[in-house]
Amino acid sequence: MKDIQSQADHRRINIKKVGVKDISYPITVLDKAKLVQHTVAMVNMYVSLPHRFKGTHMSRFIEILNRFHGKIGLKSFRPLLEEMKRKLEAQAAHVELQFPYFLKKARGRANAIGMAEYRCRMHGSLDDEEEELTLEVQVPITPLLPAQDTEGLPRSPGRWGVANVQLRFRHFIWIEDLIQMVEEVISHKRWAISPVTPEESSLSVESVTSALGERLASHPDIRRFTVTVENLAEGYSTFASLEWPYNEDESADELVSALPCRSTAGLN
Amino acid sequence: MKDIQSQADHRRINIKKVGVKDISYPITVLDKAKLVQHTVAMVNMYVSLPHRFKGTHMSRFIEILNRFHGKIGLKSFRPLLEEMKRKLEAQAAHVELQFPYFLKKARGRANAIGMAEYRCRMHGSLDDEEEELTLEVQVPITPLLPAQDTEGLPRSPGRWGVANVQLRFRHFIWIEDLIQMVEEVISHKRWAISPVTPEESSLSVESVTSALGERLASHPDIRRFTVTVENLAEGYSTFASLEWPYNEDESADELVSALPCRSTAGLN
Amino acid sequence: MKDIQSQADHRRINIKKVGVKDISYPITVLDKAKLVQHTVAMVNMYVSLPHRFKGTHMSRFIEILNRFHGKIGLKSFRPLLEEMKRKLEAQAAHVELQFPYFLKKARGRANAIGMAEYRCRMHGSLDDEEEELTLEVQVPITPLLPAQDTEGLPRSPGRWGVANVQLRFRHFIWIEDLIQMVEEVISHKRWAISPVTPEESSLSVESVTSALGERLASHPDIRRFTVTVENLAEGYSTFASLEWPYNEDESADELVSALPCRSTAGLN
Amino acid sequence: MKDIQSQADHRRINIKKVGVKDISYPITVLDKAKLVQHTVAMVNMYVSLPHRFKGTHMSRFIEILNRFHGKIGLKSFRPLLEEMKRKLEAQAAHVELQFPYFLKKARGRANAIGMAEYRCRMHGSLDDEEEELTLEVQVPITPLLPAQDTEGLPRSPGRWGVANVQLRFRHFIWIEDLIQMVEEVISHKRWAISPVTPEESSLSVESVTSALGERLASHPDIRRFTVTVENLAEGYSTFASLEWPYNEDESADELVSALPCRSTAGLN
Repeated sequence: MKDIQSQADHRRINIKKVGVKDISYPITVLDKAKLVQHTVAMVNMYVSLPHRFKGTHMSRFIEILNRFHGKIGLKSFRPLLEEMKRKLEAQAAHVELQFPYFLKKARGRANAIGMAEYRCRMHGSLDDEEEELTLEVQVPITPLLPAQDTEGLPRSPGRWGVANVQLRFRHFIWIEDLIQMVEEVISHKRWAISPVTPEESSLSVESVTSALGERLASHPDIRRFTVTVENLAEGYSTFASLEWPYNEDESADELVSALPCRSTAGLN
Repeated sequence: MKDIQSQADHRRINIKKVGVKDISYPITVLDKAKLVQHTVAMVNMYVSLPHRFKGTHMSRFIEILNRFHGKIGLKSFRPLLEEMKRKLEAQAAHVELQFPYFLKKARGRANAIGMAEYRCRMHGSLDDEEEELTLEVQVPITPLLPAQDTEGLPRSPGRWGVANVQLRFRHFIWIEDLIQMVEEVISHKRWAISPVTPEESSLSVESVTSALGERLASHPDIRRFTVTVENLAEGYSTFASLEWPYNEDESADELVSALPCRSTAGLN
Repeated sequence: MKDIQSQADHRRINIKKVGVKDISYPITVLDKAKLVQHTVAMVNMYVSLPHRFKGTHMSRFIEILNRFHGKIGLKSFRPLLEEMKRKLEAQAAHVELQFPYFLKKARGRANAIGMAEYRCRMHGSLDDEEEELTLEVQVPITPLLPAQDTEGLPRSPGRWGVANVQLRFRHFIWIEDLIQMVEEVISHKRWAISPVTPEESSLSVESVTSALGERLASHPDIRRFTVTVENLAEGYSTFASLEWPYNEDESADELVSALPCRSTAGLN
Repeated sequence: MKDIQSQADHRRINIKKVGVKDISYPITVLDKAKLVQHTVAMVNMYVSLPHRFKGTHMSRFIEILNRFHGKIGLKSFRPLLEEMKRKLEAQAAHVELQFPYFLKKARGRANAIGMAEYRCRMHGSLDDEEEELTLEVQVPITPLLPAQDTEGLPRSPGRWGVANVQLRFRHFIWIEDLIQMVEEVISHKRWAISPVTPEESSLSVESVTSALGERLASHPDIRRFTVTVENLAEGYSTFASLEWPYNEDESADELVSALPCRSTAGLN
């Protein structure tokens, strides 16, 4: 009797996901301008197991990763997911990449480093029928710079904050184009911390979030998105976020997570 | 015409959440043994705004936090959430605390530090009708220590991994009791990396996840939970996770997040 | 012959330091106002071994730490160092504490959280004859806030940067007093990113570093110090540093380290 | 009178270093096998100013960095330092690079990822007469794996620890060769947590530190080095370190720093 009960419980208490994570790996990302960009990613690979599944061979994740060696990137998401799903007899396969993405800065600011860094995360999944690709990009926000020193010594007003955009495509969008879209909204209006002229908008997490929301919602290739704008204050941050399409439901589970800023995956 | 369209869009592209985050704050946590434990938390406070809401007063979060000064803790979750909801005219209020929790180690191991650290996260929310409290605890896993040096020089076999338990209560459970439950499962069986006697079980992310799942599912005060067990390998980790009750649906959104190890909330 | 050579090498290739590190531990720090402040420290304890020493008992560090349990703090530095030196038969003993220190904010800014966090590090050492105590404090720097919104909605101009002061005493100085000294210099002058009136000074890493250097050098209780001021720019930082007394020698070893930003690992 | 005093103080309280730091930048490193390896570095560039120097042009660091764009690496250390020294009229110039370095794993372990990551730091400096290059590498240490599961499911015994080697050359040594030297020492002896056969050595921070010290001291191209070996225990680490040539002097300033684990900030 007891064994049957135990079996019943067993059927309901099943491992749902297994995989490997926190693999630091050099990858190449397809880049609109240069074709190939070399960067270093933190890679997670995992599968969703069918109900009642017995176990899996962890070593297969590593074998698959090694087979795609040096060619992990957007182009290889689909075949990578397919191979994971097949080799691991899984219901769904997932790959997550987190990496810094670099763009040449064309804006002629004297103090701008030649390469701007944007933190990105991609999450590709392949379920029974459907492939999903979620792209997340962090774009730094800098307010209007006060007039520069006459001797050409640029001074930084500090870091105002960051916009975090997470979206799903209808059709593929280049990371560059997404970043440009966000930067246009940020620079289009003359945002100022304390507007003094009628042309200037008040720079606040709410106003920037709304402006980004309107811009992204009007893009035909974007199916869903979440925008979070964060303003670094003294000792804390303020933030606002919106999602589109608006979801009335509120999952109490939802945590303020987004892309971890410099999260350190390891031992310290 | 265009304006009407634009207004329609506006109604749908609304700020959903606003708040403050990454506030480092000394808190007191009620502790089964000592009544009060002092620790330092990373605090997030935010509200879900009703549809069509105009804006909010960020300074009110800080005012509320200051009013509860020194008394942020489990006991004050409910009044804190209520005040946030009322003062900010919000539909739902959320407070997240992330903090290290310390327990005296009774196990007489020569090399055990007197205070064991467990990273915890609490997320309390108050929606129109309902209060929810999610508790998350990280418990380190150490395999059977090989026989010690005779001169009493304990050697560490290294760090095997960590169990992460996230749950919702039916009735309140002390953090201590949850940690003890997890540690009992981990130490109950004689886990070994390579079992040599019949009494020993093979230490794997799957086997520990399943054992923890069975134990937690049988606890009357636990309503829902997720368990993730991680094994640190050379240069990466393997992991397994389960959730209970088992949810057939697979949200492609779900990311391998759990409690960030040493997540750095700031700019670096 | 070869063995003698090998022994000779052995005598020169000796372990110099052994110890324990990265222990997250709740501590109490003596606080000018409240007498006792509870916080969480990252603790390192290590000893310098005399030339030719054979080995040491790592477990003794833990035994000593456990004996001082709950009372690790400034007051106990000397007895802790003495016990380490004696029990481990060491030539010198070292204790490092890294912790967030909280001060009540009296400045009536609407958006100031009630508790300001300052990251501190203390390094105490006891050599044959001499005790040394090095104190390091990080003080955030915020430029002049533009005039606030009339509705009392404070907006953050972002994070300008941070001043890092590391010093050795002639006579004990309270952490509060050191912080106050630094904040006075920062707020005394009307620093502005782009000065428009003659009363305002240009806020730059060089100007703030110099102003802090002059203030600290004139304090009778400070024997040596290093000041580093950092300005967060878009994607990088600029910094300036000075040390006093000025040291002409340049050790190529010296790295830009200072207190790591957000490495207060106890918090996560 | 007071002014003269003040001027005297001024002469002694001079800015000593200025520069830029925490720049995330894609770099290429010369690689023994593949000639060029792409990775992402955290870059610091700074100069030591001559006594009494007035100020510097921060923008020049960025201009110089941009000029070397895409070609920051070992080969360009010397010209980079020379240009910094000249353009900034400095007494000494410093460049620090911190980056993950990847090597193909030839060891046929089933669970080994194809690319092993080693964290490296290089610090080049050019003083009036002399160039100095310091190289630092972190090599993970894994104890003898217990016999593997018969089904080929490799199990990780966890992470034992890490060896950190910092050295100055007499003649250039490839990073690969340094890593290989360290890995040979670690794997040459049959280290075991609890040795059971006479061939096995006891794996302890002291024994591994000594073995590495002897190996490195016998290398003709190494002029100076420091070795630190760290063993991850439950909730803390133990460590031992030695430096060669042995330095009797003990600077109380020396902190347990070494390469921060997972601070390769470009990755997150």
